Amino acid sequence: MIESRMTIEVVTAGHTEFVDISSRVRRLVVESGISDGICCLYVPHTTAALLINENADPSVVQDIASKLERIVPWNERYLHLEGNSAAHIKASLMQTSQVILVESGKLLLGIWQGIFLCEFDGPRQRKVLVKLIPSQT
Amino acid sequence: MIESRMTIEVVTAGHTEFVDISSRVRRLVVESGISDGICCLYVPHTTAALLINENADPSVVQDIASKLERIVPWNERYLHLEGNSAAHIKASLMQTSQVILVESGKLLLGIWQGIFLCEFDGPRQRKVLVKLIPSQT
Amino acid sequence: MIESRMTIEVVTAGHTEFVDISSRVRRLVVESGISDGICCLYVPHTTAALLINENADPSVVQDIASKLERIVPWNERYLHLEGNSAAHIKASLMQTSQVILVESGKLLLGIWQGIFLCEFDGPRQRKVLVKLIPSQT
Repeated sequence: MIESRMTIEVVTAGHTEFVDISSRVRRLVVESGISDGICCLYVPHTTAALLINENADPSVVQDIASKLERIVPWNERYLHLEGNSAAHIKASLMQTSQVILVESGKLLLGIWQGIFLCEFDGPRQRKVLVKLIPSQT
Repeated sequence: MIESRMTIEVVTAGHTEFVDISSRVRRLVVESGISDGICCLYVPHTTAALLINENADPSVVQDIASKLERIVPWNERYLHLEGNSAAHIKASLMQTSQVILVESGKLLLGIWQGIFLCEFDGPRQRKVLVKLIPSQT
Repeated sequence: MIESRMTIEVVTAGHTEFVDISSRVRRLVVESGISDGICCLYVPHTTAALLINENADPSVVQDIASKLERIVPWNERYLHLEGNSAAHIKASLMQTSQVILVESGKLLLGIWQGIFLCEFDGPRQRKVLVKLIPSQT
């Protein structure tokens, strides 16, 4: 059986928002029945991205988001006329794709790690594409 | 049949330049005959990197490149005697490897997404290594 | 035979430290007996990350580490009460996962490239998870 692509739909509520999708990714891994391999995550957007970092204390991702805003202020002089260049730049500093290992049917996230969809130009409807590749048949 | 590694050769013309290689990656996916799996991209350089972001309006990547230059100016005091530390640092802030999903023989790029080789110390000859891994045989 | 997950243990000595693990990753690839595929690397930590960049001149990663410290100073005002937000932010700017191609039993690193575990809140014991996925059986 071919493991085909799955999609996680995320509706963001704020302009900048980090949405924890860890439990949804974990569920897809279980549902796939794969026992050993890799879980590939991909964001098909240009003003959103993927981040894996601490989800125990929500102030960690708030600090990450605030610092990104200080490094890349919304209102600098950018060429792109749509006015959302800061969102494109912040997304570029995070990751578009991530690969997480799967073992014994479980996603090998670290104990403090969560998977976040980073919204930098919301609110919007976003997608995260997920594909599981088994180690071997 | 083993899907072996393919190489995209890029000749950059400027010192900093983001070269859109999306159509070349798409062609390799078609030529490979793979219908379902992942496309792994890798840059074997230390002053170049991979970025997936908007390729509709070229001012987006110009804004990304300019902002990186403001964050990491060429003429700060660096230890590395070759004088191109800024290029190494900018490459570190982008991605060395990317994984994009393939479905029904097509690369699942988002509608606004393009794949860029980011040159930070050109002009030079660069390579992007590409390998397709099928979901299952 | 299923290629199962391997682990590289790293003990860091300093607060910020980039540890070259290239030769250990190369050895795992050889030991696995895989001839063609990809090598997936994953850091299960939130204040450490993976970087692939120059390992010939050690001043390159010193410049990268120093610049990250200037961009993300340890003593700014952050919300996270543990006091190590800067380490979380720096890790977010590097990569959590990397995928490197394997061909003829060899890791396709560029000639100047090394793989680094980036420690941003050491000294600590760290792990890098490694999984090899063959192109096809």
